[in-house]
Amino acid sequence: MYVCIFKDLNMLEQMDKYVIGVDIGGTNTVIGLVNKEGKVVSRDTLATQTYTDGAIFVMDIAKSIIKLKSFHDVEIGSVGVGAPNANFVSGCIESNTANLRIKEEIPICKILEKELNVPTVLSNDADAAAIGEHIYGSAKNCSNFILVTLGTGVGSGFFADGHLIHGHNCMAGELGHLTLYPEGRECSCGRCGCLETYTSARGICQTFKELAKKSNNIDNINTENITSKDIGELANEGNPLALKTFEITAKYLAIGLANAVTFSNPEKIILMGGPTKVGAPLLIPLKRYFKDNLLFIYENSVTIEFSQLDDNDAAILGAAALINLKN
Amino acid sequence: MYVCIFKDLNMLEQMDKYVIGVDIGGTNTVIGLVNKEGKVVSRDTLATQTYTDGAIFVMDIAKSIIKLKSFHDVEIGSVGVGAPNANFVSGCIESNTANLRIKEEIPICKILEKELNVPTVLSNDADAAAIGEHIYGSAKNCSNFILVTLGTGVGSGFFADGHLIHGHNCMAGELGHLTLYPEGRECSCGRCGCLETYTSARGICQTFKELAKKSNNIDNINTENITSKDIGELANEGNPLALKTFEITAKYLAIGLANAVTFSNPEKIILMGGPTKVGAPLLIPLKRYFKDNLLFIYENSVTIEFSQLDDNDAAILGAAALINLKN
Repeated sequence: MYVCIFKDLNMLEQMDKYVIGVDIGGTNTVIGLVNKEGKVVSRDTLATQTYTDGAIFVMDIAKSIIKLKSFHDVEIGSVGVGAPNANFVSGCIESNTANLRIKEEIPICKILEKELNVPTVLSNDADAAAIGEHIYGSAKNCSNFILVTLGTGVGSGFFADGHLIHGHNCMAGELGHLTLYPEGRECSCGRCGCLETYTSARGICQTFKELAKKSNNIDNINTENITSKDIGELANEGNPLALKTFEITAKYLAIGLANAVTFSNPEKIILMGGPTKVGAPLLIPLKRYFKDNLLFIYENSVTIEFSQLDDNDAAILGAAALINLKN
Repeated sequence: MYVCIFKDLNMLEQMDKYVIGVDIGGTNTVIGLVNKEGKVVSRDTLATQTYTDGAIFVMDIAKSIIKLKSFHDVEIGSVGVGAPNANFVSGCIESNTANLRIKEEIPICKILEKELNVPTVLSNDADAAAIGEHIYGSAKNCSNFILVTLGTGVGSGFFADGHLIHGHNCMAGELGHLTLYPEGRECSCGRCGCLETYTSARGICQTFKELAKKSNNIDNINTENITSKDIGELANEGNPLALKTFEITAKYLAIGLANAVTFSNPEKIILMGGPTKVGAPLLIPLKRYFKDNLLFIYENSVTIEFSQLDDNDAAILGAAALINLKN
């Protein structure tokens, strides 16, 4: 087990300093400098896909941090990293991560702590986003909530009784792989009917294509390379197929979220990510179906909303706030 | 919010004393005296269905406790009550509880504390059972596990990162109402396809009856008043319909449990209750289907077992251990 080398972390002292949030995405890695009010005051970007060597990648992240620190002439209290396939306990990004060209395990916490001499915490993207919502977003002062990220896949972070749930191997909160229909769509995980096959950006595109085919592509839309963003724009222009797509997506998502409520009895469910940008065409039917599917004992005790945090900042703020998990 | 009147609970002092566990069931209410080694040394029983007045019912429970205390000439450190429809926060059994003839809210903690002058805690049956497994059973030293009770319904208690999950209204862990098939069997909750419609004692009977009808009741079994216990006995005698019933039950239960794992990433799942008494005809296919349905990231990190606690004692021990929740 990885043990943070900074055993006597003085949180009051940390809070007076700037912190770094690193958001490792499949395309870009964004390094943000965050002030004590929770604002991203400066950022640097690396092209993730140009790296095939883990050590070189982490050293370049360290260089970016030193650059930001020197330029703004500030003290850094801690570094938080949000990444896919992250192991909070070991402080490593696991080997063979789907969206990275670096295939070996990356001991990112160990390297950054050695280079920067500040405590460093690693966690998965959705957990980082949940922490971000808890510290800076609409889950401030909320002890029981679920953060759901809709993107290429569907991720989630569960806060219950004031704590983020980690679980036995720090792999709790895989809402995207809740089985919605045991004989449903094939999932990349090898099983069938997972929530993310219906409600991720990919799932939304598949639903749209199926509807277009069924209607003999009545509007003559080029569906081949269509994205969930395109479908969102069509929906907001009033296109019936696109509106129907989000209606269906909302129905599936509502069943999944109503199931999630039976586990952790949250006060709030907060959704973020690309597909939420469509707004009303998803949110309005989602609230209706959610109410229909909710077990009666939870009636009027749980709300659904889209994150209010700025999209570009949410991941960085979440990562920057990860240090709180170690205390 | 109900506040325990014993603010400065000295746990070391409490541990030297005997404790009382009260298990309120639809038929009987069992009051057990538990020693510090976690053994039920004596018990008293009340016929729950004879009561229509909450205050009289609780006063009779108090009298039973005083009787046990006097007979054994011991000090009582605390009282724990496991009940259906229990509100841990308010210390009350909610009004209109399905299996009780008492229809008003029962402020059981307040009355017992006043009568006995010892701290009293109330929680739902499955949470009590989870606490019991954590203190006395096979989840000792286990920080992440799920306790599932199979009975008239299906209940559950989730332990994550060393804590029992309560949730916003203390109503977390309703695994029985996970939607397995959105268009499936009708549930008493008003929705369709809940896990308990397939895997509770009632669900098992329904599956058996459906199979018997389909086979034109080839074995000429009187299915009208058949119980899950009868079906279990038939299965252990090798009856093909009964064996098929548990095979189907195992398949549904496995999907539900694999879904539960994606939420809290447990190390163990422990099952208890009547239908588990059948043993191998349920456990063997359950383990096979569970493996088939488990998301690959949890492979080899979670086990399924039946509770090893004595059936009659489990509920009392769990209730007796509830005081740990207040600390």
